[in-house]
Amino acid sequence: DIADAIERVLPSAQGTSLVGRHVLITSGPTYEPIDPVRYIANRSSGKQGHALARAAKDMGARVTLISGPTHLPDIPGVTTAKVETAADMLDAALGALPADVAICAAAVADWRAATQAMEKLKKEEGQTALSLALARNPDILATLAAPGARRPTLVIGFAAETETIITHAQEKLSRKGADWIVANDVSPDTGIMGGDRTEVHLVSASGVEDWPAMSKDEMAVKLLGRAAEALQTMQLAAE
Amino acid sequence: DIADAIERVLPSAQGTSLVGRHVLITSGPTYEPIDPVRYIANRSSGKQGHALARAAKDMGARVTLISGPTHLPDIPGVTTAKVETAADMLDAALGALPADVAICAAAVADWRAATQAMEKLKKEEGQTALSLALARNPDILATLAAPGARRPTLVIGFAAETETIITHAQEKLSRKGADWIVANDVSPDTGIMGGDRTEVHLVSASGVEDWPAMSKDEMAVKLLGRAAEALQTMQLAAE
Repeated sequence: DIADAIERVLPSAQGTSLVGRHVLITSGPTYEPIDPVRYIANRSSGKQGHALARAAKDMGARVTLISGPTHLPDIPGVTTAKVETAADMLDAALGALPADVAICAAAVADWRAATQAMEKLKKEEGQTALSLALARNPDILATLAAPGARRPTLVIGFAAETETIITHAQEKLSRKGADWIVANDVSPDTGIMGGDRTEVHLVSASGVEDWPAMSKDEMAVKLLGRAAEALQTMQLAAE
Repeated sequence: DIADAIERVLPSAQGTSLVGRHVLITSGPTYEPIDPVRYIANRSSGKQGHALARAAKDMGARVTLISGPTHLPDIPGVTTAKVETAADMLDAALGALPADVAICAAAVADWRAATQAMEKLKKEEGQTALSLALARNPDILATLAAPGARRPTLVIGFAAETETIITHAQEKLSRKGADWIVANDVSPDTGIMGGDRTEVHLVSASGVEDWPAMSKDEMAVKLLGRAAEALQTMQLAAE
């Protein structure tokens, strides 16, 4: 279980705690409607985001989980808001502030249908090609990471990539203003998207750490242990 | 259970049987990949198609179920092929012929991405609009219903509509060459898509029957009872 996992992967972090902290986590895919029955989705299972919520709760935090559509059970003791679209996810995230830590683990659609049809789109006889106009979705990570009084102390994003993983993650770190980016390779042959295990790189201004392959539960405990340490260090520095 | 449902909704069909018949059923949504992580989907749960497969099996048929991605359990005694895209569903359906009855209950995507990217699509800085090129998918119902030696004796399609239900279903009947169209209203406020109950209209060359609201299990039993009767009538006429 989580307690065992803490002992195993985080011997140096024993005693770190998130008691008194509010941790905000986004999880799962978003669904972007095209019409009343069709939508654009992605293969995120929500397993990593939900593992993070469980781990944060087990470390004593108050946890708000904002989840896109998944088939995962609710987590007792975690306040969960269920949303579909990126726009609704952003609204729920902003509504949950202030937070000490924000972890954007959801696979948010970059694009939504530019116009959502109120009736099911009909195809016309003989029509063999169609162009679907897409509009850019709001950027939840960048919005949460933007400087301001309500910015969480620690803002962590995820980068799910299929090529040149580290370079993309470093670009994402500076472009979004996040403190850390957790980068992983979601190429179908890795089995990470939808699977129970992961292999990540922690990218921050101070460099890149390559973490060994581990379960998503273990990764959650390790990442939140690091977050607890960072909050403590920042607090000591401010005192 | 199904047996009770037969007694309740089909008093006139007692003794109808599908023993010795092969019933081919498509069920669920299709997923049409845009890139390794994104796809276009629809809100079909597969509940109606799976209910049809259970009912056909309970009436003695040999059943082949070709299912898009759903979270429904496999049905013991039913040969199930799991597919993702419309193209794969068509291949599996054609591979399962010959059949006495084909019921196309799947919500097949009309469109797929014209080109499927091998790497995750990146958005460019400042890009606020994008056009996704779509190509027409193969038409499984029309393909199965086309005249020919391998055409199933009875080909039944579904029409999930949100407006002018009957007119659309009648157009679909003649355009696709199906024998019957089961038409229903999948507007979000009906709760039919993803729900356990349905309210359908059976559209054929001889007219339109409005069936009362009932469970998807009951509808399956009633429809397959009608199919068994029709096969028997056609057989007698041919003898």
